[in-house]
Amino acid sequence: MQSINSTPLTGVFVAPDQREALLQEATSLPRIVLSPLSISDVELLTIGAVAPLTGFLAQADYERVVTEMRLTNGQVWSIPITLPVDRELANSIKEGQRVALQEPDGHILAIVTVHEKFTYDKHREAREIFRTEEEKHPGVARLYQQGEVLLGGPLEVIDLPRNRPFMEHRLMPTETRQYFAKKGWKTVVGFQTRNPVHRSHEYLQKVALEMVDGLLLHPLVGETQVEDIPADVRMASYKVLLDNYYPADRTLLSVFPAAMRYAGPREAIFHALCRKNYGCTHFIVGRDHAGVGNYYGTYDAQRIFDNFTYAELGITPLMFEHTFYCKKCEAIVSSKTCPHDKSSHLVFSGTEVRRRLRAGEPLPHEFTRPEVGQVLIDGLREK
Amino acid sequence: MQSINSTPLTGVFVAPDQREALLQEATSLPRIVLSPLSISDVELLTIGAVAPLTGFLAQADYERVVTEMRLTNGQVWSIPITLPVDRELANSIKEGQRVALQEPDGHILAIVTVHEKFTYDKHREAREIFRTEEEKHPGVARLYQQGEVLLGGPLEVIDLPRNRPFMEHRLMPTETRQYFAKKGWKTVVGFQTRNPVHRSHEYLQKVALEMVDGLLLHPLVGETQVEDIPADVRMASYKVLLDNYYPADRTLLSVFPAAMRYAGPREAIFHALCRKNYGCTHFIVGRDHAGVGNYYGTYDAQRIFDNFTYAELGITPLMFEHTFYCKKCEAIVSSKTCPHDKSSHLVFSGTEVRRRLRAGEPLPHEFTRPEVGQVLIDGLREK
Repeated sequence: MQSINSTPLTGVFVAPDQREALLQEATSLPRIVLSPLSISDVELLTIGAVAPLTGFLAQADYERVVTEMRLTNGQVWSIPITLPVDRELANSIKEGQRVALQEPDGHILAIVTVHEKFTYDKHREAREIFRTEEEKHPGVARLYQQGEVLLGGPLEVIDLPRNRPFMEHRLMPTETRQYFAKKGWKTVVGFQTRNPVHRSHEYLQKVALEMVDGLLLHPLVGETQVEDIPADVRMASYKVLLDNYYPADRTLLSVFPAAMRYAGPREAIFHALCRKNYGCTHFIVGRDHAGVGNYYGTYDAQRIFDNFTYAELGITPLMFEHTFYCKKCEAIVSSKTCPHDKSSHLVFSGTEVRRRLRAGEPLPHEFTRPEVGQVLIDGLREK
Repeated sequence: MQSINSTPLTGVFVAPDQREALLQEATSLPRIVLSPLSISDVELLTIGAVAPLTGFLAQADYERVVTEMRLTNGQVWSIPITLPVDRELANSIKEGQRVALQEPDGHILAIVTVHEKFTYDKHREAREIFRTEEEKHPGVARLYQQGEVLLGGPLEVIDLPRNRPFMEHRLMPTETRQYFAKKGWKTVVGFQTRNPVHRSHEYLQKVALEMVDGLLLHPLVGETQVEDIPADVRMASYKVLLDNYYPADRTLLSVFPAAMRYAGPREAIFHALCRKNYGCTHFIVGRDHAGVGNYYGTYDAQRIFDNFTYAELGITPLMFEHTFYCKKCEAIVSSKTCPHDKSSHLVFSGTEVRRRLRAGEPLPHEFTRPEVGQVLIDGLREK
């Protein structure tokens, strides 16, 4: 089995002694007020979560990522990390110029040296990345609303965003790698989630854990859709789950500060590549990973991995079928491991799960650990 | 993931039109009456289960297998497949001579061309293969009882052994490979067993099956120890288990006609290499695989795989920890996936399981599927 990725991370933090000078410089530069998506992208770039990227994509990289899922150097990259600005602002910026990036409250995060500014075809990006041009798709909607011009160039980071909840669980890739090394884990499986962990997900994680040394439970806590369960409630539910049902010395809970793009297959590749940066050797890809609505086929996010070799990805995807509790099997099983028909299966739609939780109705203990259900019900009641 | 091994098998069956002439020749040759172990070895050689071997090891191969786990051509091989005869018989045979191999009832199986006859150090073989010289070890006992001289040479097979039970499940490697190909399974995990399949074993098989296309449940039905449960009772229990709890289109039950050697780590490698010949891409190695008594460390049969690369073995071992039902987890789990202490775990020793079955006392349904328990109890009662 392959061991943990040891590529050095390309941080884009400026040296501490240059910070003051840069901050001084920034005050005199044109300012860009970042969207929530761009704020989380700056954090991802800063901490090395999206290595090898160290800045926003320039045009040639952007074009090749959109059409071929590769950077111009041939490396696999599936999601364009871009800095969109509106036309008016773009017109005021010259290529070669330095621009300050700030949060809406004025907090300056970084300076970007604008190597290129270029227009782009939003409909083509939508088709290629989201497989639809429909504005009902939340990723497409965001794309259509963003600026018409992209600025490409390297980042010099002065400060991380102000609003970074879960700091005690917000480990950077260098930190998760150090943790894995200290634990002596040679193989680590990453689990991406933006939902509560029900028993079917626990099963997938533990199936993988039977074959690797450690599990990184790595919930995404950046921007998600309104109907998703809030990150703080989810975090509380993950903690109670781990405390009661997972061996502490095989598991690490840390957060992934990315926003959801709902790009399905493309985002599955992105999620896997990011987790490689965090030190994972394996990554779980379930059904309809990073999907939304009916925009992607159930297994599209698994099949897309067939386009790349292990050498290209550097992380092994673990693909799973639909899992559920089966009354006859008396266990969580999948359509690959259970012969019984649907009448024996305990399955709830996401909508029904949310309805029950919001109504304070417990889910069966075969579906959700009771402690987890209680935290979710209590957490949603408080909102 | 690697796909199914497609190396052509080297059968040693003679062509049908030469069979009569060989049988005629055999009647005039010196005869060797084979032991049960040698009879099963002839079958393994004939069907290609121990490819690349096509006969009994000559001296240079024997020496290198014993000392280095390799054939003289460098290929990994861990168990010497030899033809031992006693001194008196050996003295009557010249190198280059042809000898007929027969079952005790006179049924002629094959002709071997004796390229070499050589003596060997049984104590060294015991130390190297079984890691002990103690005669209490069943493999060592058999070794000490066998002949003092080994005959090495290629085999021309006239007929397979007469006593081959479970013919409808006795698929040859070519047949299992065809079955996998017909099913479209690109990845297949093999599970070796000489015991009933309790829920903890079912769990291991299904954990593996979550990640591969098919499962070959491949019980060993050659000679085992007296206290092991008879193969016909076990086979009946496997069938009722598969019928009730496994998806038919993901599972194949077939038998492995080898005898047990109880060589632990060495036999784990042997079992994996044989399953590669049957077309498996993965092979489950649990705790104390092929062990007996306390001769091997719990994980020795897993650690031995570290000595070889995937390219050398051609099959991926899947290593598992001790698994058991946990009342708090409400699931089968392992020491890697369960945080609870022993008081929550449902564990019975093999001795206790056999005692209960022989006494007609059912095992808990979390330990053994009720249908399986009933078949075992009924089967043992009849004996």
